[in-house]
Formats: sequence, structure tokens, C-alpha cells
Amino acid sequence: MKESKAMSNIPYKIYLEENEMPKRWYNLRADMKNKPAPLLNPGTRQPMTAEELSGVFCEELVKQELDDTTPFFEIPEDILSFYKMYRPSPLVRAYCLEEKLKTPAKIYYKFEGNNTSGSHKLNSAIAQAYYAKKQGLKGVTTETGAGQWGTALSMACSYFGLDCKVYMVKVSYEQKPFRREVMRVYGASVTPSPSETTKIGRQILEEYPGTTGSLGCAISEAVEVATSTDGYRYVLGSVLNQVLLHQSVIGLETKAALDKFGIKPDMIIGCAGGGSNLGGLIAPFMGEKLRGEADYDIVAVEPASCPSFTRGTYAYDFCDTGKVCPLAKMYTLGSGYIPAPNHAGGLRYHGMSSTLSQLYDDGLMRAVSVPQTEVFAAAEEFARVEGILPAPESSHAIKVAMDEAKKCKETGEEKTIVFGLTGTGYFDMVAYEKYHDGKMEDYVPTDEEIAASVAKLP
Amino acid sequence: MKESKAMSNIPYKIYLEENEMPKRWYNLRADMKNKPAPLLNPGTRQPMTAEELSGVFCEELVKQELDDTTPFFEIPEDILSFYKMYRPSPLVRAYCLEEKLKTPAKIYYKFEGNNTSGSHKLNSAIAQAYYAKKQGLKGVTTETGAGQWGTALSMACSYFGLDCKVYMVKVSYEQKPFRREVMRVYGASVTPSPSETTKIGRQILEEYPGTTGSLGCAISEAVEVATSTDGYRYVLGSVLNQVLLHQSVIGLETKAALDKFGIKPDMIIGCAGGGSNLGGLIAPFMGEKLRGEADYDIVAVEPASCPSFTRGTYAYDFCDTGKVCPLAKMYTLGSGYIPAPNHAGGLRYHGMSSTLSQLYDDGLMRAVSVPQTEVFAAAEEFARVEGILPAPESSHAIKVAMDEAKKCKETGEEKTIVFGLTGTGYFDMVAYEKYHDGKMEDYVPTDEEIAASVAKLP
Repeated sequence: MKESKAMSNIPYKIYLEENEMPKRWYNLRADMKNKPAPLLNPGTRQPMTAEELSGVFCEELVKQELDDTTPFFEIPEDILSFYKMYRPSPLVRAYCLEEKLKTPAKIYYKFEGNNTSGSHKLNSAIAQAYYAKKQGLKGVTTETGAGQWGTALSMACSYFGLDCKVYMVKVSYEQKPFRREVMRVYGASVTPSPSETTKIGRQILEEYPGTTGSLGCAISEAVEVATSTDGYRYVLGSVLNQVLLHQSVIGLETKAALDKFGIKPDMIIGCAGGGSNLGGLIAPFMGEKLRGEADYDIVAVEPASCPSFTRGTYAYDFCDTGKVCPLAKMYTLGSGYIPAPNHAGGLRYHGMSSTLSQLYDDGLMRAVSVPQTEVFAAAEEFARVEGILPAPESSHAIKVAMDEAKKCKETGEEKTIVFGLTGTGYFDMVAYEKYHDGKMEDYVPTDEEIAASVAKLP
Repeated sequence: MKESKAMSNIPYKIYLEENEMPKRWYNLRADMKNKPAPLLNPGTRQPMTAEELSGVFCEELVKQELDDTTPFFEIPEDILSFYKMYRPSPLVRAYCLEEKLKTPAKIYYKFEGNNTSGSHKLNSAIAQAYYAKKQGLKGVTTETGAGQWGTALSMACSYFGLDCKVYMVKVSYEQKPFRREVMRVYGASVTPSPSETTKIGRQILEEYPGTTGSLGCAISEAVEVATSTDGYRYVLGSVLNQVLLHQSVIGLETKAALDKFGIKPDMIIGCAGGGSNLGGLIAPFMGEKLRGEADYDIVAVEPASCPSFTRGTYAYDFCDTGKVCPLAKMYTLGSGYIPAPNHAGGLRYHGMSSTLSQLYDDGLMRAVSVPQTEVFAAAEEFARVEGILPAPESSHAIKVAMDEAKKCKETGEEKTIVFGLTGTGYFDMVAYEKYHDGKMEDYVPTDEEIAASVAKLP
């Protein structure tokens, strides 16, 4: 490491003091001129009412879901207490990566992997479990892709003494056997999806025999169980407005840490599956952009195998494969789209958060897609210099941050780049092994495949 | 969580600022009246000279190994830079655990798992890799039990561009396939031990066919390769004085964090395999005790299946099964002792650090042993309230800290208990699964087994 870098007055890791921590979530929608389109009842095509949504979701969460005018929500004391167990997460200056790339760019990453669930998902899991408990429920159902959300929700439910039923996308269930065991440590039950335990699961298995599953399938099963079991509701780890609200804690902490040292970023980069991390990370920055107070280059990174922003269509679609959920207006590949079994299990969702979709459609952010072998190459390079073993999902952001830093090397620009490092890859060693053994393939859907899937939009 | 606890002025996590971080390692031996006994040449039974040791270890590390009078060693700038990537580690106030146990005790843990290697081992790995690089070596060899040390060393070698050959205890190699893959991410080669790749490995396999290995076997193999390959030296993650010196950073940070808030602990508890974590954690506290400045109840916790302190003999013994290493005076079960395949892979060493052995023999600390099923029960209880998924090794300290806190509940004493949480259990899910499925057994050696092993002391 060069003396100049080591001697900088910016610490390697910026941690906020407890009194500097956010006490409110920020509701980005309040500052949007073009609001995200409402969820529609698939039968009537009318906006879903609070009453309708309350059959599926907890009441408080329905309020948060529908509120696009209140800019801030107080974080309940019990959630703040829980956050203290693992927050603030560090904002890390990637001095070693900068050295390795010999870039004039200044790179920061907000590392959300320093908790047992291994990712940012815990931020919303604890909020949703809290409201379920407050409502007096027995338990919740959910789906999980890579297993990060399921693990996070298991931890949160264990904390509040709630039962937790997890439907896990089959490809992840098989690739990540130990994820299941972590959820068991926290007392959850885990079922590979699609399964024979639900009507919709059986239908999907009949229609697509041998399918490795998708988030869309797993959502359908979890919703079916929640709505047919007394004292249960369904909770979701991404896509929804409420999730972006809870995840705004990532961006609020990031901004507070940057402000503390007078740092103004030029670019904010995040991986995007359903949008939970990206929406949370960019929230306060996008807010400034919407209010005309500042400008930022905001970049969503998605896998080339599941490119909803870059190759999808902006339209109303089902949130789930089984078509039991409301319709959401979003960038989508079609709810029947089942991506190739790539190794970023958390980025295999066919659609994208309505809020982010609207912002993207309004030209307030851009998106790029990257193939997974390049993502793993970036992940390994990052691991060797920065120490952290990144999750494949997070590594999508790493890849593009590194690409941008290399561009700075060419142009001589001293851009400040902030990216979201959403989690760790401890449960992704099967994927790393494939990469090492040269057995990992890139899969990019053809235009015909996407067109065929999109043609089935409702 | 009760308001009273939440409202305490002690933060959940105490992080030191960069300018509060230790800049020197503390050499506990300088304050010991009864110095640890020197390593002996197994042939001549004379103390090993620096020259003799330099055939196996790096020169600077030999100096550190033999120096029992210099109280402080400056930490080289490059190591301080690396430490900044993951240090300071947090000192956590276990408010939730206290609530769960309804104990008046105040419990703190120093959490060393917040780095990719997942344990405290990185503190010494980076130091040893640094000195190897400084000496111009091509690479290093080592052994690893649970895989924590091997992972840590792989990361450190990758950082300095050194080759890294790891001999991994066979039972861990089989139970933790993904550990191998993490080491591969960092470019290391990993061989299950005992193996056919060394003379000593072949001998051990002949003598104990079907053995699941031990640290003692793996050490022999790694030393053989280091001493027979040009440009290589052997490095060890525990037991040695140099390792305790590097690991003193744990205790120094802990003490600085406690002092910052005017907290004086009553008890310091650490798990003990070879002694690296325990020796590091207690260093400055034991120093005060040795100098008569303060008193602490210092407790080593070991597995009932490998009870070197509580049931071993204080005598000169080989550090390795193959008897290629020097003799060390230590509490030992005999270098031929191969413990049952318990799930705390890092606590399967037949002996104990000479420094800690001397302190224990002088009555300056005490030791307890605990069976693994009770350890896993404590681990799960801890995970559910404190969030962190602990390594089986670390959970030995958790178990005893919880026992002590429960005693406080009975007596009403408001003791302040500090324990070392050395690492995370992400790669121990096979063990957790066995525990969940009721398939985990406790193994306690008979007096006859121990006597038979000790009878073979040199």
C-alpha cells in the first residue's frame, strides 16, 4: 500500500456513532413526481385496497406499502434495539483495491454482510417480523432464493418468537444445503420449491417438470400457505415498497458516513434482483436528485441471464409465477420467465421493484447487465485484495465498480464511486468451485426467449 | 429488551477509533517470574538455538519466539495497514443474552469473526506471512484443523504474494469441504492429513490405518515439506510464543475498549486448543495480575474429549505426532493422543502453549472442560438471542460464560464477564445438523486411555 493512501485522513472503515445513526426510514416515493404505479387486483384490474392487501400482508406493512406521500417513518424502538446488534454497517474505503487497479478513483463500499444472515436482508426481516408480532400473528411464510432472505427472516422470527415457514428455490436448496441448516438453527422449516405441499406447486411441477424453480414459483407457494393458514401472513424480502422503505437505512447510514467526512460521491452502484438493496442504498441520494439538490450517476447491475431492466418490458405483470399475487407495474421478463440456474440465486427474479422501475423509466438511473464468469473473476480479485469473500449477488456491483475505476485510470478522472456490498459468499462455495474448475458457463437468453415470455404478460 | 438495559450508557458494540488502536504487541513472558520452559532439541535435549530454529521458522519469528524479556514489539506498518481492513474487532455487550438468562452479570464478548477467515487466526497469519515475505521466501507450509488457520494464512499469503501449502486434518477436510474452496479462492493448495505426500504421513497411515488425523500429524507433514523444500519455511497458528505475541492485539483492544468506559472485568474466559486465542485475549490482564496491579479470574475452556489442561500432564513432549519438532514443556495428553472426531476441529491439539501451561501451573488461571452436546446447546441459545452463529470452538467459551452468568443469578452478584468469541460457524453446519438430528455424541477419554498415551512421553 502506498504511503499516500495509507496516510489519507479517511479511515479504512467509517463507523457511525450510535447517536449518528438513522432513527427514521426514508420513503423515497414521497419525493417522486411520477409515483410508482399502484398494485392492481388481478381480477378487477382496480388498485388493491388496504383491506384486500391485509389478507396477505400485516396491517402496518400494508400502510407502508400504500403510502407514497409521507417522507419519513419513525423506526420503532424494538427494531432500533435489534439494529444495534449489527448496525451501523461499515462504509469501507477500498484502499487496497484502488492500489491494485492503480486507479485515481476513490472507491467506497457499504458492507452489509457483517451479520449472521450474511446480507442486508436482515434490515427488512426484523421490521416485518416486528409488525407481524405486533399484530399478534402466530407466524409468517416466505420464499427465499439464495437463502439470504430466509436466513434473515429466520433470525428475526426467532428473536420475536414467531413461526417461520420458508419456501426455498430448488436450485439454491440443492446448491446450498448448509443454508437450510442455518435456518434450522433459528428454528425455521424449509421446503424446496416448487413442492408438492401446495396446489400451485403441484401445478408448476406438472407444467415444467424438472424445473429448478424461481423466486416467482416460491412466492406463489408461500402466499398460498399464508392465505390458507390461520394466524399467518406472507412476508417478502424484496420488490415491495415497504422493503425499500426499511432498506433505506443502508443509504441513510452511507450518506451520514460520507457527509461526516465531507465526501460527495459521483456514482452509486448496486446489484439489482428485486431491488431491495439498490432501492435502499440509493434512497437518500435519489431523493436529493429528485429534489434537484444534487446529481449522481446511479447504476443498477443485473445478471445477463436475468436482465429485467436492460431487456425487459415496462408493464403490469404478476409478481409470481403462479399468478396468485397482485399485478405490479414493473420492468419484467414475464412472470413465466425461469432463468438459467445461474449462481446469483438472489438475482433470479423476473421483475423489478415498481419504485425503481419508475425511476429507471424516468431516466433517473441507468442499468447494465454482466455475465457471471466475469462477475466471479471480479469477486476473486476483490477477495484477494480486500479480504472479504463476496456473495455472487454483491459481486455484480463489484464488477461494475471495478470497470468504472478502470475507466477512471484511462481518463485520469478522480471519481468517487460508492457501491453496495450486500453480503458474503460463505454459502456459495459450490459456485466458486465451479468457477475455479472452469465449469461455469454464461447463459444469455435470446431475444426470442424473452419475447415469448413477455408475450404472455397479462 | 428491558428499557434499563437498552438505556445503559455502554454501547452494544464498542469500537476503538483508529488512533486508539494498539501499535505494539505485548509479550506476556516479559512480566512472568517463572518463564515458560525453552524448546529443547529432541536429540541433544539442549535448548534450541536460534540457528537451529531458523531451519524451520522465519528468522524474525525465531527472535520473537526466544525473547522472554522485551515487553513490547512494534507492529510493522504493513501489518497495521492490513489490520485496518478488519480491526478493531467489536467488543460487544451481550444485552440480549443477559436478558435471556435474567442474570445480573454484565457480559461482554470480543468478537473476532468479522473477517473472511472467520476467526482470530488472521492476526498471526498476516504477521507470519509478512516476516516470510520480508525474508524473501517463496512460500510457507502449515497445518490446519478446523480450517480457520489455513483460511487465514491463505488470505495473508495472497496479500503478500506467497505460495501457501496447507495440510488439513482429515476429519475437518471431510466435514468442511467448502473450507478447502475458500482457501482456493485465495490461491492455496490443500492436502488432507495424514497423506501419502510425506514420509511421516505414510508412516502414520501405516501405524493408525483409518485415522481421522490430528493437528499433531498435520504439523509433522507440514514441517517435513518446509524443511525439505527450497525457499519455504513452516508457520504455525497456535501454541508458539510468537503466536501469543501477535494475538495479544485481541487483549490489548479489549482492555482499551473496557478502559474507555471505565469497566473492570471480574472474569476473562476463553476457549483453549493450542492457546492462541486465550493467550492473546488474557495477555494484558494477566500482565496486570503478574505485576500485582489487578486481579482477574481467568478461565480456559477445553473440550472434554481433548482435556490437556484438566487431565493432562505438565512435561516435555513433542509438539507433533511424527516427532520431527522440538520438545516443548506443556500440559499434554501425549503427542500420540488422537482425540475422538469431535466437532471443534480447532480444539483437537494434544498439548498447550508453554506460556499458558506455566501460568496454569503457577495457579494464575484455571481450566474447565465441557462436553460438546452442551456446547452446541449453548451455541444455539446464543445464536438465537445475539444473532451471531458461533464456531464450535468459540462456543466452549460461550457455554462457560453462560454457566457463570447463571451462577450470578443465584448469588445475585453483578460480575462483569468478558469472553472471547473467536469465530463464526458458517463452515460447521454439518456439526449443527448432527446436533439438531440428535446424532451428536459426547466422548470423554478414560483415565486408562490418557495414562497409556502419557506413558509414551519422551
